[in-house]
Amino acid sequence: MSELGRFIVLEGGEGAGKSTQVSHVEQWLLGRGRDVRRTREPGGSLLAEAIRGVVLGDWDEGVDAQTELLLIFAARAAHLNATVRPALQAGCDVVCDRFVDASYAYQGGGRGIALRHIDALSDLVLQGLRPDLVLLLDIEPEQGLARADARGDNNRFEAENLAFQRRVREHYLARAAAAPSRYEIIDAALAQDEVSAQIDLALERHL
Amino acid sequence: MSELGRFIVLEGGEGAGKSTQVSHVEQWLLGRGRDVRRTREPGGSLLAEAIRGVVLGDWDEGVDAQTELLLIFAARAAHLNATVRPALQAGCDVVCDRFVDASYAYQGGGRGIALRHIDALSDLVLQGLRPDLVLLLDIEPEQGLARADARGDNNRFEAENLAFQRRVREHYLARAAAAPSRYEIIDAALAQDEVSAQIDLALERHL
Repeated sequence: MSELGRFIVLEGGEGAGKSTQVSHVEQWLLGRGRDVRRTREPGGSLLAEAIRGVVLGDWDEGVDAQTELLLIFAARAAHLNATVRPALQAGCDVVCDRFVDASYAYQGGGRGIALRHIDALSDLVLQGLRPDLVLLLDIEPEQGLARADARGDNNRFEAENLAFQRRVREHYLARAAAAPSRYEIIDAALAQDEVSAQIDLALERHL
Repeated sequence: MSELGRFIVLEGGEGAGKSTQVSHVEQWLLGRGRDVRRTREPGGSLLAEAIRGVVLGDWDEGVDAQTELLLIFAARAAHLNATVRPALQAGCDVVCDRFVDASYAYQGGGRGIALRHIDALSDLVLQGLRPDLVLLLDIEPEQGLARADARGDNNRFEAENLAFQRRVREHYLARAAAAPSRYEIIDAALAQDEVSAQIDLALERHL
């Protein structure tokens, strides 16, 4: 059997600069001769991207918190099944923009869904799989929202208020504090190349 | 506050004649002066019907059992939120083609997902709501599949083999046996008007 790939996740609130740094991590791994599969949640397979379209859609009836949570975990199950597990088993590193911590932060912290429900869904869908490393791009919600506004982003989550974004941040930090060996908290308030430099150090420490 | 509506569910395997009998129950209630909302799962709201389209879609990657289960519960959450709870609270009776027992039968019995996962999802989504009456249209899988074939139906579930349909039936019957006061087992092998006559007796007993 070949070596399993490494599963690296980037997390963070709105405007933390995740997309740019996902590319940076991908390039870092490619530069070390690794095969890399870059992906994102919700999404990352044809079925999961269709579910993403539904969950981020503009529905007259709205999308209640439970439906949102279940759709995101449905997309996660499809993504793991079709994309992540096959890549890792083929020895390919996977770099993913958001994963299960985002459900704790957004649906748990943001929407107020009891964490035991998120634990139960994680138990069903992950079946023991977890990231080798989570890079948490941490930024003050005021600064992150200002960046997201400047970019013109306005999906359902970016439109939530500051109190929502603060709960998201608190839940991210709590997840990192509970398993420090698998998380690196990156100061995402700095300039882009300084954020990348912190990420390089974290990757060298962990991989 | 006005009286709550009654929540009546029809369940059964492929070819049991549910659609016809859903109409019969609707007419029975209308004939007694009730307001009636006829609906179905997965589906029953615009968002839930979109999720139905995804879960019954023909995806190259397939739809694994976990994704199917989570999509069906996501559709259920949207359906309860947008359609079922508002109707019941307005005093309108709801007649629904399939509900949570179908998840125990198809995803639990048929696909082999552990029932504790279905219990956890039901706990999250139902929040104590349950049907006042479940009419279980029971039929031998051989006979039901022959009827479905004659009708030309061939969705993902109707295409499953006889062993799958037998597990579905067993799980339906086990659900009914566990809460006999809320279930009526209807012999769906009989002619349509004889099935309707059994249903009339069941409705008179329960409502």
